[in-house]
Amino acid sequence: MIEVKEVISEQDLIGALSKIFRPDQMIISKKEVEAHSQTCIPFRKIPDVIIYPTEAKQVQDLVLLANELKVPIWTVSTGKNWGYGEKTATYEGGITLVLERMNRILTVDEELGYAVIEPGVTYKELNDHLKTKGYKLWSDSAGTTQFASVIGNALDKGRGLTPYADHFGHLCGLNVILPNGEVLETGGGPTGNNHVRHLYKWGVGPYADGFFTQSNLGIVVSAGIWLMPAPEHSDCGIFEYKADMSLFGSFIDDFRGLIFSGHMKSFPHLANDFAMLCILDQYPKHLLENGELCLSKEGIAQWRKEHGVAPWSFGFGLYGKKGEVAEQKRMIKKTLGKYGQIHFIGAATENSMKGGLIRKLAPLALKLMGKSQVFAQGYIDALNLFKGIPTDRFARQVYLKAQPEKPVADIDPARDQCGFVWIGPVIPLNAHHSMKALEVAQQLFDKYQFEMFIEYIIESPRSSIFLMGVFFDRNDPLDCERAQKWYREVREVFLALGYPPYRVATHCAEETFDSNPVFKNLIHTIKTAVDPKNILAPGRYGTPPRRKKGTSRE
Amino acid sequence: MIEVKEVISEQDLIGALSKIFRPDQMIISKKEVEAHSQTCIPFRKIPDVIIYPTEAKQVQDLVLLANELKVPIWTVSTGKNWGYGEKTATYEGGITLVLERMNRILTVDEELGYAVIEPGVTYKELNDHLKTKGYKLWSDSAGTTQFASVIGNALDKGRGLTPYADHFGHLCGLNVILPNGEVLETGGGPTGNNHVRHLYKWGVGPYADGFFTQSNLGIVVSAGIWLMPAPEHSDCGIFEYKADMSLFGSFIDDFRGLIFSGHMKSFPHLANDFAMLCILDQYPKHLLENGELCLSKEGIAQWRKEHGVAPWSFGFGLYGKKGEVAEQKRMIKKTLGKYGQIHFIGAATENSMKGGLIRKLAPLALKLMGKSQVFAQGYIDALNLFKGIPTDRFARQVYLKAQPEKPVADIDPARDQCGFVWIGPVIPLNAHHSMKALEVAQQLFDKYQFEMFIEYIIESPRSSIFLMGVFFDRNDPLDCERAQKWYREVREVFLALGYPPYRVATHCAEETFDSNPVFKNLIHTIKTAVDPKNILAPGRYGTPPRRKKGTSRE
Repeated sequence: MIEVKEVISEQDLIGALSKIFRPDQMIISKKEVEAHSQTCIPFRKIPDVIIYPTEAKQVQDLVLLANELKVPIWTVSTGKNWGYGEKTATYEGGITLVLERMNRILTVDEELGYAVIEPGVTYKELNDHLKTKGYKLWSDSAGTTQFASVIGNALDKGRGLTPYADHFGHLCGLNVILPNGEVLETGGGPTGNNHVRHLYKWGVGPYADGFFTQSNLGIVVSAGIWLMPAPEHSDCGIFEYKADMSLFGSFIDDFRGLIFSGHMKSFPHLANDFAMLCILDQYPKHLLENGELCLSKEGIAQWRKEHGVAPWSFGFGLYGKKGEVAEQKRMIKKTLGKYGQIHFIGAATENSMKGGLIRKLAPLALKLMGKSQVFAQGYIDALNLFKGIPTDRFARQVYLKAQPEKPVADIDPARDQCGFVWIGPVIPLNAHHSMKALEVAQQLFDKYQFEMFIEYIIESPRSSIFLMGVFFDRNDPLDCERAQKWYREVREVFLALGYPPYRVATHCAEETFDSNPVFKNLIHTIKTAVDPKNILAPGRYGTPPRRKKGTSRE
Repeated sequence: MIEVKEVISEQDLIGALSKIFRPDQMIISKKEVEAHSQTCIPFRKIPDVIIYPTEAKQVQDLVLLANELKVPIWTVSTGKNWGYGEKTATYEGGITLVLERMNRILTVDEELGYAVIEPGVTYKELNDHLKTKGYKLWSDSAGTTQFASVIGNALDKGRGLTPYADHFGHLCGLNVILPNGEVLETGGGPTGNNHVRHLYKWGVGPYADGFFTQSNLGIVVSAGIWLMPAPEHSDCGIFEYKADMSLFGSFIDDFRGLIFSGHMKSFPHLANDFAMLCILDQYPKHLLENGELCLSKEGIAQWRKEHGVAPWSFGFGLYGKKGEVAEQKRMIKKTLGKYGQIHFIGAATENSMKGGLIRKLAPLALKLMGKSQVFAQGYIDALNLFKGIPTDRFARQVYLKAQPEKPVADIDPARDQCGFVWIGPVIPLNAHHSMKALEVAQQLFDKYQFEMFIEYIIESPRSSIFLMGVFFDRNDPLDCERAQKWYREVREVFLALGYPPYRVATHCAEETFDSNPVFKNLIHTIKTAVDPKNILAPGRYGTPPRRKKGTSRE
């Protein structure tokens, strides 16, 4: 089935791996491997074996063995990059390496604001550790599951919501197993003794951390991550866009001004109605017209009305001394008030009598505001995210069509065969490009008959990730094909418009740099030099693919 | 004299170059080449020819020619990296490529806050352009000369003082001529049409801008640089440390807190008395004791008294709305007031009646404060730097021992044979490491009989560049040797203590990664793959050196 079998039998491979890993560190039965290889994206390949190392030394030994046997290794941290590729490689067979059991928190430095962690450490573990030990530090969290890997998300350039939302930008100093088995320590200094490798980002010489993001030049086995000193005071709010869409462009321009001026310190996700509704409810089949694959505009308007959802909304955080938070509130109200409603509801997340009272009164307040009761808990989780406290609430949105109800716990949309895929072109954060992206997105959602799911993931005052996604029936090949076609056309159209994606789902990984042949050539040259046997994640992010069976192996 | 001559005569080289460059773009006479190759650092090599391209196409043609002829190219932007290496290569002969005539400002985008410029654009040109055209944008400036290259300084990880002090961190999207002559466009998207390559830093795939900092994998021929929207209001101040040195550690810790909390938005350079005095005055030979190579502690104390200089001082900027600037002032006073004196003197830089009056009264005020009159203009230039306005005032400090007086204009310490060299280990920004670095520095300055020159260049709330420098007689081989020995021992001792340098002077370039052999091996592998003939700046930042005459050329 895969080329490695031409050289080494599966039995011999298992035999060789057994010299490094205990039986409980390997999944080898076809049935189990298959069960652990499920995906949400409309694509998957099944490996020969799944390996769970506990120590960097085991990873090192595995890399040396893989070179010897010419077996490829596809590495994930915890594999919770749902909708971007989960654990699947770009090719059949080989070894899938899951680092989730390497989950030690090696250092926390409260004074200088950083931790050193292994790739199995999840948002929940890091946040719990900080809270339990009483550190006055916050870890940013991705909006996805609390069981995602902090390092894995950062290396894939994932985003959070607090002032430390730029996850890759807050990594500093990596330990990396290179394809030749050597352990590289980035951070600009001598091996083994460097007080600043987790403090000073650029090091000396080329900036080496950059080699290992969205890449396959090594396996990161630990990393420094900067943490935010807990501010003296924080609050949070909800904004609901209520103005005519003709004003949306100037709203975006004003929003940008708030970030440039420092009055908006968090990095909100501005979600459209459908994206919000996916969080609150299951798919309203009763609103689907006969024979249609997706809700009509009227259907969505009706559904929106049932829950009191605005056409666009976002949550945000406020941070600083009390007076500074008040000034941020004032400026946000002054700047965005003309476009909609702003509610400051930080008190509701407080662990105080006041907080308890507000939570008790929330149902009544929501009713008065024309909102459904499901809002209440969602608000609190959303607003906790602005303090870096992770949650599984928003990951549950992907169960929209897959099950009659959203699960309460044990979220695993890959296992549960929720079909969905994300694509996030980067756009300039201004009126023109925000409107242009929206217009084109609407056409493509309509063309393939998917409801339009949009989040502007604010990246900086200069750019935004324009996140689009579709939900489909993962077990229906025709529906998978529809999603695949939508994805590819969106990718091509947005590339042609000058909006390249910030991240690539695995089924399109090999095409990543096709539109930039000089860069592709450079990356291929470097990859071939550093990993001459193409052992590490071949085909990941536009690198040379694993050759098909029957052709030369390297 | 150099290996290229074994293959091609100088005449043939000039002949080949003449097909690409006009006569006025080449310096070929031995005397002129020698005059343009002078250095401040105690080291220099002389090239065969110096070339001044005006177009990227010429650079591309040159790279192709150099590959053909196997002649190395050492590239500088304007070569104003005084004290780090100026224009010198690590080897004799070859082509020195100076990009100063490629000085077009290609784009300024006021809305999204960036410019795209060529490497010959200086701080002065960029700042003048923004001011003349009325853009509400500030460019950060290095504390060195206004004629330094914005891109060159950023690619060498130079620093400024405003909130945009991290120059490399504010580069975004490069055009690079690769060693094979291809033009790489970084910034994550398709060649020729990408609206976000100067807006979104990380691109897609490995972060490519990072390949080209302190490196030699390509020649950057244009770059995006982020600019700071002019704040509604700004002010600036001077802090003078007056407390006992036993409190210096807790002062550093409190300083860090101000940066973390956002009340100190600029990135000051905390200078010791000698560093300040070098700016204000020429070397006080009258205070030198008989036979001593450097001033005694008493001599420095006396000199310091003459000018009313504090043991430590720094300037800083304040930015935001009026109320926010007031709050920053309040917090800075509250936090640092116990360690010394703070003067807010932003009004003195204002182009108003009030500003004029203050400037008129400055001499009297200085006298009352026990300060010499030379302070007055220095203050204004320093404080302008916190608005990104460049100056040559501080570059003049390096004339300390070289001439009887500091020149008023036309600063060129390399031409004027001022001997000096900088080294900047990175240290954690806390009490322990700040005191440790100071203690070790003092021992090494004493050992080699140089006056201690220290600036803590605040890099972030987490780290500081601990800049040390010495002034010596560039034309005295013995004094040059003393400086060389001081530099090498400082480098070794600070590396061993875990404080790697942020930047390497050219005479030590080849040793950059000797203490980190795995990184050295990785960089060599990549360099050899991307530049197989080792054409671009061989030996720069720890890459494979140009082989000596008589050995194989590659």
